[in-house]
Amino acid sequence: MTDATGASGFGTDHLPYGVFSREGEAPRVGVRFGDQVLDLAAALGDEVFAAPSLNPFMARGRAAWGETRGRVRDLLAAGSAEHLVPLTEVRMHLPVEVADYVDYYCSLEHASNMGRMFRPQDEPLKPNWRHLPVGYHGRSGTIVVSGTPVVRPCGQRGAGVFGPSARLDIEAEVGFVIGTPSALGTPAGAFEEHVFGVTLVNDWSARDIQAWEYVPLGPYLGKSFATSISPWITPLEALEAARVAGPEQDPAPLDYLRRDTHWGLDLLLAVELNGEVVSRPPYRGMYWTADQMLAHMTVNGASLRTGDLFASGTVSGSGPGERGSLIELSWNGSEPLKLADGETRSFLEDGDTVTITATAPGPNGPISLGEVSGTIRPARNVTQRAQSMTER
Amino acid sequence: MTDATGASGFGTDHLPYGVFSREGEAPRVGVRFGDQVLDLAAALGDEVFAAPSLNPFMARGRAAWGETRGRVRDLLAAGSAEHLVPLTEVRMHLPVEVADYVDYYCSLEHASNMGRMFRPQDEPLKPNWRHLPVGYHGRSGTIVVSGTPVVRPCGQRGAGVFGPSARLDIEAEVGFVIGTPSALGTPAGAFEEHVFGVTLVNDWSARDIQAWEYVPLGPYLGKSFATSISPWITPLEALEAARVAGPEQDPAPLDYLRRDTHWGLDLLLAVELNGEVVSRPPYRGMYWTADQMLAHMTVNGASLRTGDLFASGTVSGSGPGERGSLIELSWNGSEPLKLADGETRSFLEDGDTVTITATAPGPNGPISLGEVSGTIRPARNVTQRAQSMTER
Repeated sequence: MTDATGASGFGTDHLPYGVFSREGEAPRVGVRFGDQVLDLAAALGDEVFAAPSLNPFMARGRAAWGETRGRVRDLLAAGSAEHLVPLTEVRMHLPVEVADYVDYYCSLEHASNMGRMFRPQDEPLKPNWRHLPVGYHGRSGTIVVSGTPVVRPCGQRGAGVFGPSARLDIEAEVGFVIGTPSALGTPAGAFEEHVFGVTLVNDWSARDIQAWEYVPLGPYLGKSFATSISPWITPLEALEAARVAGPEQDPAPLDYLRRDTHWGLDLLLAVELNGEVVSRPPYRGMYWTADQMLAHMTVNGASLRTGDLFASGTVSGSGPGERGSLIELSWNGSEPLKLADGETRSFLEDGDTVTITATAPGPNGPISLGEVSGTIRPARNVTQRAQSMTER
Repeated sequence: MTDATGASGFGTDHLPYGVFSREGEAPRVGVRFGDQVLDLAAALGDEVFAAPSLNPFMARGRAAWGETRGRVRDLLAAGSAEHLVPLTEVRMHLPVEVADYVDYYCSLEHASNMGRMFRPQDEPLKPNWRHLPVGYHGRSGTIVVSGTPVVRPCGQRGAGVFGPSARLDIEAEVGFVIGTPSALGTPAGAFEEHVFGVTLVNDWSARDIQAWEYVPLGPYLGKSFATSISPWITPLEALEAARVAGPEQDPAPLDYLRRDTHWGLDLLLAVELNGEVVSRPPYRGMYWTADQMLAHMTVNGASLRTGDLFASGTVSGSGPGERGSLIELSWNGSEPLKLADGETRSFLEDGDTVTITATAPGPNGPISLGEVSGTIRPARNVTQRAQSMTER
């Protein structure tokens, strides 16, 4: 089969799922094909796609995912324009009703960079880092779809210091969405049985709030104000050609973290700040792979729910143009980024727009993951109390 | 109005909400009255109570909560036995569909004790502790109702060391359930507008897994295997007589954490291990009060959803018989608890049952919060891989 409209990165080799609405109509599930979206409930005559999230469809499991993908490919390859709606006529919604959100810390380069900046007196990597994928739970309720404005958060930036974050940052990440749940008390099964697909994530981070609050229980308000994801979930099956072996691991991981097959992914991300590419983080070199994140998440018997999302943590490569956060790109503000328009940036300013994109090898040329984008809005002084605090 | 059946602690002054089912019937909302449960959908003729969780009712907001409570009191005070079902004939379910779960660390005594044990070389309290209520997100999907067995988790207990947790512990906590949501980008409003009620929480903790994993991003698998809550949510209105000023705070908190009114609560918890009371933690002395936890949670613009749960962290008083975890009661295993039957405990053994109860002042004598209980089941070697790991 050829990849119709493949030049866009959204041909029949890709076919990501999302939730869209036309003006005045309720949100429903669609599949992206070029610059159009296929109305799945109408095209396939299945009410599971009339839902406002992918969750009911994802809960059907892997066999149903494969069967649906086959039917959609056949329909589109046949060239019918029926039930295709131009993207310009639709609004995209959060594609998944997110159950639990876990964020990992899987890039050796990112973890080392953060250690050097936050704890310059210590070894950059903590003793546990090479033994397990370090992770923590984030706030599901503030996961928003690409395009949602991000209000600069206020908070404590030190002892007695309150105000809008002055060190607002991005984290370019890759997220994995759970389709098939697992039982409480039992580790999950194979990666491809549970994981429905992949999406791009921007884990917005207020570094000043985070630095003050995070000891000893981890990041909280420095992250919980917003996490943006792409409206498009790329099904795992579309990434077969992108699968690669993860990097060698030393020491060898414990058996439950042993890689049985290749779930490294050759995704090349790009971070655009106000339209200019400022970094190209390579995902393929990430030390901990997604199968290991999943195995770790459930080895203690924690159950999975349909809609769980886990993300890789910031994707950073070894080169300076490969870092996935501004704090790394500007080395904690000591080497501000020089932008093409003559401006400089250490952290985000109000009005800045950040867009993360990615490409992956497909069977007939690259596919493009759906982008995730957001624009910073000024902090709000919503109450007299907050106002008086900001001013003093 | 007198408190009919008040001697049980579950009279008309209390009236906690839960979700129950009779054999062969679907779960629905009820109110506890003595040793019976009032079938609310039947008694009030309102389909919002035919739901399998309190969420639809909680989403109606404070005016509806008060109106319903008034109608239920009137019904029960009139002495009708209609629509009352004995508790022996019902099964209780998780009362809330939990959205986000946040766990705090609000006891000065607990935080100090943990600091002394985990970081003996440092000041027990971190520099941020007196400036903000330290908290983090936990796993919502593994919150279970009282009575659900807790399988001993497996995990990494150190570099290259894998197996069932050997330091399985409890944390006796008080939880707060959000009814009324708030908008993204804006701090929440008044405590009593958002908080529907209070429940007892046991935040089971695997101390060996936690100690190895928690730096720098906080607790993860050491907590995420199970968190138990009571089937009963005590409405905030039932705790009017329990409201007290929180303890003095030095330094004075920032304006957004200023206490406008009294949201300390005079709850006295009891921790039973296999039927024997081993601790009586007093909640009233907790350094950070629940209104402060709520204000902190949303000061960065994070939104609230109906069903969000936030918990106090371990309730520990200053006396040795007032500590809310075994690691404190046994001082990290160095002073094992001596039980009445001649046994000793530093941490939980398979088959142990822990039950947490609490009482609070009511207008006509004490009310009893619904208990939270759980029994430890042996670790499972569910896969060949896990088995080979445990044995080696």
